[in-house]
Amino acid sequence: MAHRIVNFSAGPATMPLSVLEEIQAEFLDFRGEGMSLMEMSHRSKGFDAVLVEAEALVREVMGFSANYQTLFLQGGATGQFAAVPLNLGESGKTGEYINTGAWSEKAIKEAEQLGQPCRVIASSKDKNHSYIPGNYTIGDDASYLHITSNNTIFGTQWQDFPDTGNVPLAVDMSSDFYCKRFDPNKFGIVYAGAQKNAGPSGVVIVVIRKDLLERSPKNIPTIFNYSTFAAKNSAYNTPNTFGIYVIGKVMNWIKAQGGIDAVEQTNRNKAALLYNLLDSSDFFRPHAEEECRSLMNVTWRLPSEDLEKAFIASALENGLSGLKGHRSVGGIRASIYNAMPTAGVEKLVEFMKHFEKSNG
Amino acid sequence: MAHRIVNFSAGPATMPLSVLEEIQAEFLDFRGEGMSLMEMSHRSKGFDAVLVEAEALVREVMGFSANYQTLFLQGGATGQFAAVPLNLGESGKTGEYINTGAWSEKAIKEAEQLGQPCRVIASSKDKNHSYIPGNYTIGDDASYLHITSNNTIFGTQWQDFPDTGNVPLAVDMSSDFYCKRFDPNKFGIVYAGAQKNAGPSGVVIVVIRKDLLERSPKNIPTIFNYSTFAAKNSAYNTPNTFGIYVIGKVMNWIKAQGGIDAVEQTNRNKAALLYNLLDSSDFFRPHAEEECRSLMNVTWRLPSEDLEKAFIASALENGLSGLKGHRSVGGIRASIYNAMPTAGVEKLVEFMKHFEKSNG
Repeated sequence: MAHRIVNFSAGPATMPLSVLEEIQAEFLDFRGEGMSLMEMSHRSKGFDAVLVEAEALVREVMGFSANYQTLFLQGGATGQFAAVPLNLGESGKTGEYINTGAWSEKAIKEAEQLGQPCRVIASSKDKNHSYIPGNYTIGDDASYLHITSNNTIFGTQWQDFPDTGNVPLAVDMSSDFYCKRFDPNKFGIVYAGAQKNAGPSGVVIVVIRKDLLERSPKNIPTIFNYSTFAAKNSAYNTPNTFGIYVIGKVMNWIKAQGGIDAVEQTNRNKAALLYNLLDSSDFFRPHAEEECRSLMNVTWRLPSEDLEKAFIASALENGLSGLKGHRSVGGIRASIYNAMPTAGVEKLVEFMKHFEKSNG
Repeated sequence: MAHRIVNFSAGPATMPLSVLEEIQAEFLDFRGEGMSLMEMSHRSKGFDAVLVEAEALVREVMGFSANYQTLFLQGGATGQFAAVPLNLGESGKTGEYINTGAWSEKAIKEAEQLGQPCRVIASSKDKNHSYIPGNYTIGDDASYLHITSNNTIFGTQWQDFPDTGNVPLAVDMSSDFYCKRFDPNKFGIVYAGAQKNAGPSGVVIVVIRKDLLERSPKNIPTIFNYSTFAAKNSAYNTPNTFGIYVIGKVMNWIKAQGGIDAVEQTNRNKAALLYNLLDSSDFFRPHAEEECRSLMNVTWRLPSEDLEKAFIASALENGLSGLKGHRSVGGIRASIYNAMPTAGVEKLVEFMKHFEKSNG
């Protein structure tokens, strides 16, 4: 068995071991084709079957209706920060944003620098993004409402999604993609860099309501054009074939776990192990407010920065990696995406108890 | 040993078997880190070493000076069709293009649809792109000259690159990247989708002269901004980590072959095997004019479309795949990139002789 540590990296992140083993086993000869998947033409029947399956699986796993289409694009969420206003913006209307952290701010800044009309209707900046704003009013002239569903850096997460009526809801779901059940019919567009919960880096998954494809104008960069890529099932140009293949495997892995509801239950159990410890301790101090806590990224501080450094170093010696918090919050962050086994979180909890006993 | 066929796909394309075997061997545990390369944070020391090495290798293998920087971006050449005019365009000046085929035309169309000033100074469209134009004048008001160094569809290739003086030469080298020695100091910017000669799909390699980074304006999509990505050594956002890792391995494979000159000699030998047969046959009719022939994509017709279909089907039965020509030329195309072994071309030549004898 391969040497394996517990990887709490925020992304790229731990993946299901069984998925990695499957990829390794067929790496030189994919489905008897006599070549690696990486060597297959994106126009071949062999790869097309992989693409068609992955497109359908992304919708099927969450129960998106046939009114939606999956796109596999490149450029990550950063590319989508431009693509959303360029595709969904409407003449005389304004893109609306709720600012819940660094990634929301990047999305807002991108719309501004492209000269796209935009407006921030709520923000959690007053408390270093430790909560999700509850009070906001969507304008009559909104072309879309953009939110960040989970804030990797701060450890907060939207618990329920806003009702936006006729205004398309655009959600950057990069760090909590498919971590729990949601009603897919609420969304205009969902997008997620695959590298946290769905696969390797280099693919951004977009699920878009098909009627919105009509909004894409012709005078934007082709690589951003949702309509162009939808018409070619993501293969307008050469897509990240290997990444799409891995995403398909991760979707099948979710199904094999019992589907989204089973994955959600495991995620809730894993998160509870950590939050219960944080709540019962005076030594560890959680960052996010209780009602906005993320299932995916758990953030906390220790009594001093020296203790935080010692914690991270000692954790690594114990086979627990990737626990350093982002500099804007400091302290510790444990990213516990779908593929993080419960045993990994249990190991962390045991380590934390031991560390508190020795240093508290 | 893995079942392996001879893969003449135009891209994604055959890769060096030794590279695939290395990747497979370390797929579950990269350099003893206890995780797959795919699971490593792009901010980790482990991945940073991979990135730094790949950036340097791309320059080293061709002998680019320290005046150049490698960028690993996403979105393929299609993204670069937008990025080049958006970054290199100068106020009051015009982007110039030479049209040598379908990919040149896409680059031109992209600049036009973005409202970027551009002008076509030469074209081979009059003869279905069977040659490379020799007569053109670069304007005093040119902000750059864009060419496609190799035309995958038509099987033509620039033999020498134009001298452009102070005007930066921008080259889409997607289908002949590092297939032969060239003088790197002639270039303003070279870019190439990795999936033909350098790795898997999902990464576009850019090598840019550093002084040109100053041209990048602030009001373009961030994902296109060369200056922003150069400042962060391609990791402004999460790059395609797995793709970059594979590209590094392919660069090391070129070095292990004896470097660019050795690879070029092998490529010339492989291409000669095919062109000699085409020239000595009345049955097979090459598409590209002799002085413009590509080392990478060899295109030819048979006496009838029925014979072409029979040729492709029979080739596949003999373990030779991916030989169908692009619809705009028809007939047969053999893509013989760096990683195509000489033995693969020899097998094709033997098959062709046999097919001609049976059907000629």
